[in-house]
Amino acid sequence: MIRRQVSDLHQELVRYGLVVWTAGNVSARVPGEDLLVIKPSGVSYDELSPENMIVCDLDGKVVEGEHAPSSDTAAHAYVYRTMPEVGGVVHTHSTYACAWAARGEAVPCVLTAMADEFGAEIPVGPFALIGDDSIGRGIVDTLRGHRSPAVLMQNHGVFTIGKDARAAVKAAVMCEDVARTVHLSRQLGEPLPIAQADIDSLNHRYQNVYGQPQAR
Amino acid sequence: MIRRQVSDLHQELVRYGLVVWTAGNVSARVPGEDLLVIKPSGVSYDELSPENMIVCDLDGKVVEGEHAPSSDTAAHAYVYRTMPEVGGVVHTHSTYACAWAARGEAVPCVLTAMADEFGAEIPVGPFALIGDDSIGRGIVDTLRGHRSPAVLMQNHGVFTIGKDARAAVKAAVMCEDVARTVHLSRQLGEPLPIAQADIDSLNHRYQNVYGQPQAR
Amino acid sequence: MIRRQVSDLHQELVRYGLVVWTAGNVSARVPGEDLLVIKPSGVSYDELSPENMIVCDLDGKVVEGEHAPSSDTAAHAYVYRTMPEVGGVVHTHSTYACAWAARGEAVPCVLTAMADEFGAEIPVGPFALIGDDSIGRGIVDTLRGHRSPAVLMQNHGVFTIGKDARAAVKAAVMCEDVARTVHLSRQLGEPLPIAQADIDSLNHRYQNVYGQPQAR
Amino acid sequence: MIRRQVSDLHQELVRYGLVVWTAGNVSARVPGEDLLVIKPSGVSYDELSPENMIVCDLDGKVVEGEHAPSSDTAAHAYVYRTMPEVGGVVHTHSTYACAWAARGEAVPCVLTAMADEFGAEIPVGPFALIGDDSIGRGIVDTLRGHRSPAVLMQNHGVFTIGKDARAAVKAAVMCEDVARTVHLSRQLGEPLPIAQADIDSLNHRYQNVYGQPQAR
Repeated sequence: MIRRQVSDLHQELVRYGLVVWTAGNVSARVPGEDLLVIKPSGVSYDELSPENMIVCDLDGKVVEGEHAPSSDTAAHAYVYRTMPEVGGVVHTHSTYACAWAARGEAVPCVLTAMADEFGAEIPVGPFALIGDDSIGRGIVDTLRGHRSPAVLMQNHGVFTIGKDARAAVKAAVMCEDVARTVHLSRQLGEPLPIAQADIDSLNHRYQNVYGQPQAR
Repeated sequence: MIRRQVSDLHQELVRYGLVVWTAGNVSARVPGEDLLVIKPSGVSYDELSPENMIVCDLDGKVVEGEHAPSSDTAAHAYVYRTMPEVGGVVHTHSTYACAWAARGEAVPCVLTAMADEFGAEIPVGPFALIGDDSIGRGIVDTLRGHRSPAVLMQNHGVFTIGKDARAAVKAAVMCEDVARTVHLSRQLGEPLPIAQADIDSLNHRYQNVYGQPQAR
Repeated sequence: MIRRQVSDLHQELVRYGLVVWTAGNVSARVPGEDLLVIKPSGVSYDELSPENMIVCDLDGKVVEGEHAPSSDTAAHAYVYRTMPEVGGVVHTHSTYACAWAARGEAVPCVLTAMADEFGAEIPVGPFALIGDDSIGRGIVDTLRGHRSPAVLMQNHGVFTIGKDARAAVKAAVMCEDVARTVHLSRQLGEPLPIAQADIDSLNHRYQNVYGQPQAR
Repeated sequence: MIRRQVSDLHQELVRYGLVVWTAGNVSARVPGEDLLVIKPSGVSYDELSPENMIVCDLDGKVVEGEHAPSSDTAAHAYVYRTMPEVGGVVHTHSTYACAWAARGEAVPCVLTAMADEFGAEIPVGPFALIGDDSIGRGIVDTLRGHRSPAVLMQNHGVFTIGKDARAAVKAAVMCEDVARTVHLSRQLGEPLPIAQADIDSLNHRYQNVYGQPQAR
């Protein structure tokens, strides 16, 4: 059940230290319907359960649920409306990724693990205020046609996308991991670049060969 | 019961890594009475319980409790005496916030999450010795008329206030989180500023709209 | 049983924060046989058990197991094929070690704990693409004749070796620990060198005297 | 029972992240006897119990216990032999403290919490090889007549002393905490000094007034 999956995946954000208090959220598209499941607003991660997840339509209007949905619901909904291939969206303020985002600087692709997962730098999206479609549009305009499933929204945080919610959570975990490693590497010098042909080759292999056959 | 709430909230300080050994404390105003509930001095977080919390009057004198109250009680009491709108106070030596405090430098508001919670930079209060009302006066003089619920006391640590103890704990958690992110961001360049009008707009929305209706 | 040992040792990688998601692996040589036991590919650390470990021959071909083996199996197998004294291999993308690896910079031996465990700087191996024996050859060419049981593969991560899998895990834990400490030390100045004769003396004592007699 | 106390206190080193693998140890003087209790060498923290603690005389010779004592026993024993007021000794390679130690640089006293606990900078002791009394002598020569219960042994790690083992563990925890905060503070500028008279006043109050009457 998709409510349980979305509820459980929030614990991965906690486990990997990507969120504090109530400041991050996971959503999933309900397969075959114009609906999404998302975290309730302002509820702590300890209190999340399949039952208190919120179901919204793709305009972000609540269809089912007793609480208000995450205040980021409009951004999630915009992504689902305009990127039909996306089945999951994650938003965090994870520390190192936000440190890059506050400078409006992309994370350069200098690790083979980045080439695998992101296939390129992790790009920066525009500064955008909450309240209308600005954030959603900034996410989609940045990620459409980009290999990276993660975008650093300037002065704000990270949004990641995936074929399902688990893939989007994985991208959020990896985004913080590589943002941290590259940050630390640059503190004492310049990381060595990886040739574009090698990035392409690593990304192609990882996206097509890695993992268990049945798991992708 | 307010003793239980204060006792339990200390575990949030532990969970978010804001304290080591016995070096941080939470207090709450007893609603409708000139009393506060606070941590006993020098007792480890593992041993806290509703029963060993200390009740003091607003001059910091013990009214109920077998232990001595936190050595920071005078500062908490001063805040409750002079800011009647405050229902909770938290004190920590959280790492990144103290790193700013040791330089006597305010944390600039360069993240939308900071605009939400703090509405401005996190300001620095004066260097003050323990033993009289100097610390309390420094806190109140800095925070009165400021949007931020957190102050960095120079060379010392963080004090946060809130309408209740939970809100003050949240401010302490968010203070460390943004102090860390902005610290890291500045290590590799200058974070981009957020326009004052955007800070105002974000803060207004967050303080008035965010979260569950019943929860605020 | 060696499957259990390999399965359990992955939990040490988790405990010491050396891995996120599925990005690290432990293997062991099966004593007296031309076989190795390794993690299945793309399976989370929570789901590992003795039963789902994969047994491969020393060309990396699966002999027993329902999943595909780790995508790093070829590198592990190359090490076992060419270094008969090696009984365990570990691969991680641990943060600080990768920060050095991304710059292609060796970690200098400026801590007595490094002299103990590594006996020298932790060296850098070549940039190598996955898919053939390039990574394995890079590991072996760098570590053969070197005291260090750890190599930082450029832009990639850490490989460690040991007389058994536990020793290789220990080397991976210590590698990240010293990579972090030396990184931090260099942020504020230059660490003091340790004289080569002292490094030699420390390493000799540690490799021959330290620990319980029966445990080495 | 003192074996239990020493065994349990090792868990505090783990809890506060001061140690990895087997690289840190706690000892206590047996009250009224020329004996000390210390960790066995090379045994993991999970396996420690009151039963496998080692009892040694003040020359470091084993009096009771089936394992070899910590390889740092000679240093602990030297301290007990020459500083009769010391009831507990702790040794760690905690990260930030070692980062200062690798540069041979004292941690300046720029936090009120440092003035409380250390009353001064945390000083650096000499580089010394393991194997004779060099390390013990370096510790004692540095700490005798110094307010600080912690010394950073150059290129090596931290030794702390206390009236009992718990006090020494507290000093080790606080040492890493302030070493980290001051490190971070200095990354972005210079911490403000605290006047010597204020350090004196804070230290005097803390060492004589703080905490529960019965607890000190």
